[in-house]
Amino acid sequence: MFIKKYFEEFELTEVRETYGRTITETDIVMHAGQSGDFFPHHMDEEWCKTQPFKKRLAHGTLIFSVAIGMTAQFINEVSMSYGYDRLRFILPVFIGDTIKVKVSIKEKKEHKKPGYGLVVELVEVYNQEMKLVMVCEHLLLVEKTVKA
Amino acid sequence: MFIKKYFEEFELTEVRETYGRTITETDIVMHAGQSGDFFPHHMDEEWCKTQPFKKRLAHGTLIFSVAIGMTAQFINEVSMSYGYDRLRFILPVFIGDTIKVKVSIKEKKEHKKPGYGLVVELVEVYNQEMKLVMVCEHLLLVEKTVKA
Amino acid sequence: MFIKKYFEEFELTEVRETYGRTITETDIVMHAGQSGDFFPHHMDEEWCKTQPFKKRLAHGTLIFSVAIGMTAQFINEVSMSYGYDRLRFILPVFIGDTIKVKVSIKEKKEHKKPGYGLVVELVEVYNQEMKLVMVCEHLLLVEKTVKA
Amino acid sequence: MFIKKYFEEFELTEVRETYGRTITETDIVMHAGQSGDFFPHHMDEEWCKTQPFKKRLAHGTLIFSVAIGMTAQFINEVSMSYGYDRLRFILPVFIGDTIKVKVSIKEKKEHKKPGYGLVVELVEVYNQEMKLVMVCEHLLLVEKTVKA
Amino acid sequence: MFIKKYFEEFELTEVRETYGRTITETDIVMHAGQSGDFFPHHMDEEWCKTQPFKKRLAHGTLIFSVAIGMTAQFINEVSMSYGYDRLRFILPVFIGDTIKVKVSIKEKKEHKKPGYGLVVELVEVYNQEMKLVMVCEHLLLVEKTVKA
Amino acid sequence: MFIKKYFEEFELTEVRETYGRTITETDIVMHAGQSGDFFPHHMDEEWCKTQPFKKRLAHGTLIFSVAIGMTAQFINEVSMSYGYDRLRFILPVFIGDTIKVKVSIKEKKEHKKPGYGLVVELVEVYNQEMKLVMVCEHLLLVEKTVKA
Repeated sequence: MFIKKYFEEFELTEVRETYGRTITETDIVMHAGQSGDFFPHHMDEEWCKTQPFKKRLAHGTLIFSVAIGMTAQFINEVSMSYGYDRLRFILPVFIGDTIKVKVSIKEKKEHKKPGYGLVVELVEVYNQEMKLVMVCEHLLLVEKTVKA
Repeated sequence: MFIKKYFEEFELTEVRETYGRTITETDIVMHAGQSGDFFPHHMDEEWCKTQPFKKRLAHGTLIFSVAIGMTAQFINEVSMSYGYDRLRFILPVFIGDTIKVKVSIKEKKEHKKPGYGLVVELVEVYNQEMKLVMVCEHLLLVEKTVKA
Repeated sequence: MFIKKYFEEFELTEVRETYGRTITETDIVMHAGQSGDFFPHHMDEEWCKTQPFKKRLAHGTLIFSVAIGMTAQFINEVSMSYGYDRLRFILPVFIGDTIKVKVSIKEKKEHKKPGYGLVVELVEVYNQEMKLVMVCEHLLLVEKTVKA
Repeated sequence: MFIKKYFEEFELTEVRETYGRTITETDIVMHAGQSGDFFPHHMDEEWCKTQPFKKRLAHGTLIFSVAIGMTAQFINEVSMSYGYDRLRFILPVFIGDTIKVKVSIKEKKEHKKPGYGLVVELVEVYNQEMKLVMVCEHLLLVEKTVKA
Repeated sequence: MFIKKYFEEFELTEVRETYGRTITETDIVMHAGQSGDFFPHHMDEEWCKTQPFKKRLAHGTLIFSVAIGMTAQFINEVSMSYGYDRLRFILPVFIGDTIKVKVSIKEKKEHKKPGYGLVVELVEVYNQEMKLVMVCEHLLLVEKTVKA
Repeated sequence: MFIKKYFEEFELTEVRETYGRTITETDIVMHAGQSGDFFPHHMDEEWCKTQPFKKRLAHGTLIFSVAIGMTAQFINEVSMSYGYDRLRFILPVFIGDTIKVKVSIKEKKEHKKPGYGLVVELVEVYNQEMKLVMVCEHLLLVEKTVKA
């Protein structure tokens, strides 16, 4: 769905949540295949048994890709993605864990580009125990209604 | 390959480069399938023709996942990934572009965790015209040889 | 997004449309891999050159799966999918064609299950030349507001 | 294998069966990725636990695609697929269920296209408990030996 | 299809051929993802331009896997695969090439296992110019009708 | 990593080992999808229960592809793959088994191509119980330092 949501329309109290998604062995095997990262942390169950976490872990880039994909619910035609800051993997995600994403507006600030403001979305990923597993800030450059 | 490379052994002059990899239509279709992001920017060739960039774009999370995967060349047993900062998508990556990753040591600093230091790797992704398409900082928490 | 839309709320004038999606060689190869149908109509470019349509065709089941998937935009908690009628593949879909789906309400009728009515959605798939390539009727069993 | 089987050669007593195939978590994850349908019915194990069926379900379009693919055993050069009628999903298919397909000739009738007749195949999909999970009618337009 | 074909029934004059299959970029990207071999010969179009063959090559293991898969047309219940000899990759297979497989009986010989004989199938893979690209010998241990 | 390792530099005492990799249901389903081999030995859990091995088996071509891919650790610019001999599948690999590959130099011999010698690598695949599951010989044509 295409929408137009201007800088002035973003509220610091806004929150949106996604559906949940179970991270499967399939996701990990396919992400290894896409990224080329076949490290034993993700692919070798026997080696993982000898490590502190005991089980195969999802790649950080998998959790980031799935989480960001889950937030792709509408297209704001007056906004551009600018990048991500402070991406942190707080807790490991294991096969069978179910994640959900919560997006809130953390900050709104001026930007040097005339007619635009910067919206900072806080992206938080929780597992089925409601523990925070990943967090990052998504920077959006958003048009203002009033250009001058 | 497992290695042990301590905090003191990282040099600010170190640079490593990866093989190249051509980003294909297959990568984009599979990344949509993995992330769940089927936005027309990536999936609708007709709509893209009406946009400034004219062609389907790779997802940012695809380029990040592939680039980080390409750098997964050895396992440093005395280092832990801490997260990523300042992830920016500078230029679009199109089907048929070939990317390469350059990793250099940007900064070494103290860290509150005793016996560890923080190494900041600068991860730069270039296309076949040697233009920078993506950049980020990878934070590594690395053991020191001398613990006290 | 979860919604509650009762039988009485469906209007014969309602229409919804999806984003477009380009059908790629990747989709065909992966659908062969999923369905197990490796018939030369889909997989052998040389053989296809000797046939009336000259090019590899998308599987009918691929177009049906993608089209139905494209319409999965919200979850109606008071509705159940009952099945599909009159599924017809009108024109071939080739690699590089872009499809869009239009869903309209064709018919509403009584159903033997007390408290429910039957909604018939007409699902039409168009290519980039706005030619109809696939059509079917989706049957929905929908709760009524008034149960008696 | 290419064969030529004319309208007159189809018998109402004919039945063919396929191998069995276990529907895996991989199939569901990949079908979500192909179709773009990531609804929690298929992808969120935690949410499914709160629903009547308790477990993740295979997509209807997955079962249809796999079942039709399983019947793709030979190519009849004098026959064309015309479409499908009365597609019904009778029972849910869960991860680990094994399906088999039985194809019988339900009906033969005249068709307005000169020199052709219509063959209606009944396609029945059974699980490992021999319970019917899906059914549809496959319409084939088949050449007659005698054209006039 | 399950069959029973005994050692005595294999004839040195038998030949069977498969459908054709076009090797696509998708096949190569997915095979890299499955095997973990992301060497630039298969994945880096720019590097390949600097090499004698100028284009990305299919992995040998991809051609072998697809070719052997294409010959999987029936299951002989009285035969077991014993292994493969003299696997040679004669010519490169490029994206867009179409391969076909020809299986002939090269040799029948006695085997130490009582009641069994060894059948050597010659597996030849040809491209669309009818040039031999791969060859190997498939060894089958096959039951004899007469056991003593 | 590109290296130059000449014929004279290969030692009969050299051994290299790979990381381990767990063979998953995903690998088998994807290999069926890539190779087109959907035989019940790999895909039908119910049928497998009636067979001596009781469980679904990995395809031989999957184990071969993964094992060879696991050994793709560096690119020797003065060596060419010549083919494989004596490929044998000694024991079945089941879902959840973890394999590792050991490559040793079995033999060095003269070759008719002037300036080249033949190196025979013994490729052994072990499971988590350190049992040999697959073996083959990899033939490498390697440049000599001294050409005359």
